[in-house]
Amino acid sequence: MRVSQFPLFTHKEVPADAEIVSHQLMLRAGMIRKLASGLYTWMPFGLRVLRKVETVVREEMNRAGALELIMPAVQPAELWQESGRWKHYGPELLRLKDRHEREFCFGPTHEEVITDIARRELKSYRQLPVNFYQIQTKFRDEIRPRFGVMRAREFLMKDAYSFHTSESSLAEGYQAMFEAYTRIFQRLGLRFRSVEADSGSIGGSVSREFHVLADSGEDEILSADQGDYAANTELASSPGPTIEKQSPQAAEKRDTPDTDTVEAQARLLALPLDRIVKSVVVMADDTPAVLFVAGDDELNLVKAARALGAEDIRLATTGEAESATGVPKGFIGPMGLPEELRVLVDERAATATNFSSGANEKDRHWINLNWDRDVALPEVADLRLARAGEPAPEGQGKLCSSRGIEVGHIFQLGRKYSEAMNATVLDESGRDQPMYMGCYGIGVSRIVAAAIEQNHDEQGIIWPAPIAPFQLVIIGIGMDRSERVRQAAESLHDQLEAAGVEILLDDRDARPGVKFADAELIGIPHRVVIGDRGLDKGKLEYRARGAEKSEELDYDGVVDSLLDIVG
Amino acid sequence: MRVSQFPLFTHKEVPADAEIVSHQLMLRAGMIRKLASGLYTWMPFGLRVLRKVETVVREEMNRAGALELIMPAVQPAELWQESGRWKHYGPELLRLKDRHEREFCFGPTHEEVITDIARRELKSYRQLPVNFYQIQTKFRDEIRPRFGVMRAREFLMKDAYSFHTSESSLAEGYQAMFEAYTRIFQRLGLRFRSVEADSGSIGGSVSREFHVLADSGEDEILSADQGDYAANTELASSPGPTIEKQSPQAAEKRDTPDTDTVEAQARLLALPLDRIVKSVVVMADDTPAVLFVAGDDELNLVKAARALGAEDIRLATTGEAESATGVPKGFIGPMGLPEELRVLVDERAATATNFSSGANEKDRHWINLNWDRDVALPEVADLRLARAGEPAPEGQGKLCSSRGIEVGHIFQLGRKYSEAMNATVLDESGRDQPMYMGCYGIGVSRIVAAAIEQNHDEQGIIWPAPIAPFQLVIIGIGMDRSERVRQAAESLHDQLEAAGVEILLDDRDARPGVKFADAELIGIPHRVVIGDRGLDKGKLEYRARGAEKSEELDYDGVVDSLLDIVG
Repeated sequence: MRVSQFPLFTHKEVPADAEIVSHQLMLRAGMIRKLASGLYTWMPFGLRVLRKVETVVREEMNRAGALELIMPAVQPAELWQESGRWKHYGPELLRLKDRHEREFCFGPTHEEVITDIARRELKSYRQLPVNFYQIQTKFRDEIRPRFGVMRAREFLMKDAYSFHTSESSLAEGYQAMFEAYTRIFQRLGLRFRSVEADSGSIGGSVSREFHVLADSGEDEILSADQGDYAANTELASSPGPTIEKQSPQAAEKRDTPDTDTVEAQARLLALPLDRIVKSVVVMADDTPAVLFVAGDDELNLVKAARALGAEDIRLATTGEAESATGVPKGFIGPMGLPEELRVLVDERAATATNFSSGANEKDRHWINLNWDRDVALPEVADLRLARAGEPAPEGQGKLCSSRGIEVGHIFQLGRKYSEAMNATVLDESGRDQPMYMGCYGIGVSRIVAAAIEQNHDEQGIIWPAPIAPFQLVIIGIGMDRSERVRQAAESLHDQLEAAGVEILLDDRDARPGVKFADAELIGIPHRVVIGDRGLDKGKLEYRARGAEKSEELDYDGVVDSLLDIVG
Repeated sequence: MRVSQFPLFTHKEVPADAEIVSHQLMLRAGMIRKLASGLYTWMPFGLRVLRKVETVVREEMNRAGALELIMPAVQPAELWQESGRWKHYGPELLRLKDRHEREFCFGPTHEEVITDIARRELKSYRQLPVNFYQIQTKFRDEIRPRFGVMRAREFLMKDAYSFHTSESSLAEGYQAMFEAYTRIFQRLGLRFRSVEADSGSIGGSVSREFHVLADSGEDEILSADQGDYAANTELASSPGPTIEKQSPQAAEKRDTPDTDTVEAQARLLALPLDRIVKSVVVMADDTPAVLFVAGDDELNLVKAARALGAEDIRLATTGEAESATGVPKGFIGPMGLPEELRVLVDERAATATNFSSGANEKDRHWINLNWDRDVALPEVADLRLARAGEPAPEGQGKLCSSRGIEVGHIFQLGRKYSEAMNATVLDESGRDQPMYMGCYGIGVSRIVAAAIEQNHDEQGIIWPAPIAPFQLVIIGIGMDRSERVRQAAESLHDQLEAAGVEILLDDRDARPGVKFADAELIGIPHRVVIGDRGLDKGKLEYRARGAEKSEELDYDGVVDSLLDIVG
């Protein structure tokens, strides 16, 4: 391809409203253009990359035996009412009415539609397991779209849905998708990590996210330095620092005026923070619950929601906390709370001995409390926020922190949708059984931005070879003046193109500096420079994108040399 | 591929609400499933065909030098307000509001968006000509979606837009698209015809439609039997039967009571219909106009709108006609009409001599009128509806009628959008000039249905090879019982698949009758049957879809024989 036939639309200026490097570089490299907030056109150069990602995803999904289909983007409200999500899905769901005033949405995801297809088409256990997928434009009406295609409203997604007769078949299908995803991100040439994650509003219990690693990533990942454990911080586990076990001492109620913070309480009582068990009151689906964690720990709300089986969770206001417990803020303790209140204690806080906690009256705290002796141990759960440096689970060393961009998420949904929508098959004994479902998403357009966040330098993008829009760029120095250079450049272009190399010849009448800068900006992995001076010596200049130095190649046999290099 | 891995979802029953054969067969063959009115899921089997069509379209667009991009499906109202179409586009435009109450639409077409991109990215004549295209899901909120994907609300379209500095460059770009479209439909293996057509609401003057020929087609095409003239009936031209020329006689006003129809007038005056010039009053953009055509002709409203330069046209009501002309219905004639009224006469009616027409008073008609002698000849235009059997234009013999399904439409838009949206480039003398535009659409998903309308029989679909979802199907008779048959079938499948043949092995535990019926229904071009009886003789049975009889192939060397057949 020649630049004269494939215009680049590059810019020197960094666009003012682009906050992250991938957004800046995609605009500067002419990959995308903004139409409106969160709506982007993929220009020809950007689309080449998007299609490469799409192709790898499709090939690996097919290889895993998934069946591609395409469902409508516009979905009738009725199906979402059946699943219950019409009410619960927030304003991110773009709702619309057709000319007959019937309600629809522009689908952000397709659980309802595929479940509807499955209940019509799948009648018998003999038809299972099956996995349907599509690669499709979705819409999510983000309140503040930002970061270009990283968090756009309209985006390209691969979504897959599998159907099974049993949990074990679901687990197998889920594992097959885990392996397919691993192959996909390997083939894309990206450094990535799969981590345990929360299922969020999609539902189900088991899920795993795939993150492209990049310092600029929005998510923190904690991973074991001696093992394969890795999790999103929102869900990561650690036993935390060991709390020293003490021989029991007599419990005592103390006057503790003005100690409505854990720090004040520790100071006054001269106790380390880990001998305090502190309370946090939350509203879980609008019902109050009291959670206890160690004084030096922080409550992880995502874990709390899971432990409480709640869809929504938030911290209670002071008023809500006081009206639920009857105790002023700062003095809530496990002894003597109202019976009807749901109470949980974190696993680490459950190991505390001779601990201090609120006495459930103003300005009074207990010291030397011991679980079971003084107060029944409430239901125990993992509630604490894990931190880098703490022990990893299962003795896998320590947790290390890294940052990632979520580009894939696989879920075991179980029977949430099939039960709500009555999607059943006849089992071997002839009885109707709701199907088990898995769902598996990849943010195809987001991968392009994530790849840039991971692979760039001051000059521009550095494409991993598998998704580079072109493999090699040829720059002719003074092509307009020197017939020899022009012929050499054209001939090299034609020969490499005939050999199947995706090649771009910069045949513009532009200064070499402009061509060099654009080649760096658009990130083509391999660059060849042809000029009269080199040709005099029978040489061409070659440089890999990101390499420190150029090297000389013999003009004789250069096609073979370059075919070797490009691979 | 094996049916066990690629389930077919075929049905025997003809679905009740499917009116046309392509819709019936696509449902029965498991190609599509309805989600809601005008919204269809493309099931795996259907998607294979859709992708084949898409690939041919993409390859030929690329070959023609067009640049693929992808614009957002959701478009801001502001751009449509700029072009003026927000007001004029009817309820087929699916309008919606985002969470911030900003107005958008789900794009049925992308003239506005591409013009916005062009005015930002194209600055100089040196960047032109350029042609951008996309293959994208569109939405048109049809009032009564029907015929399956033939007239769906959500559909897949290829839309291309070219930009030029001059009309002649536009004409060249248009011609290149004409040739690309011709190649596309040739490569798809469809019988088709390109015809002159009306530009409709898209705008522009020159346009041409591409029709897949099928008896069930909604459009009538008139084409010359001795030449390449072809046009949609809505625009077809013919001089019509010659009107005999008479020597002038004296004009006379006659009493003609109760002759407010042409037939009554002809009877009373004992004149042939072609010696009557009749009036039709129309409302063109809400302004009345009087059009005269020969008594045996019918007015073509599309031509009338073009001749009058009107966007909207309809027949006037009796009240409107009388108030515009001051003459009761049935007695309007060209002599003495109000000065301010726009009056046109059809080319054929303009050749009439000694003709009768209304006297512009009740129950009175003129006879023996002659243009110019008695009444000035009004503006002449082609206004009559051409019919099959009439002379073709330019002496190309006669017009023949055939029916077609519109699958492509190319337009010279001129500067309609670039002027409205101020999309200019600097010309060679450094002045801003609005660009000339062309636009070029192909209904990708509709092609699939049109191909079936053209190619089917009682048993099912007969795919043209280029878009067949599979090239060859293998049916094993008694594969579950006979190990020899199973092995032969599997081995043939594996060898042909390895040779690159798209092959489907029906490995279901089903009766042969079911497999034969499904193979016919889904329309695979080539079928091989393997059974014990044949193998005893060292033979396989081969039949091309649609062929009368099967033939025997030697089992030895069958892979090569089949590779020859499949091509």
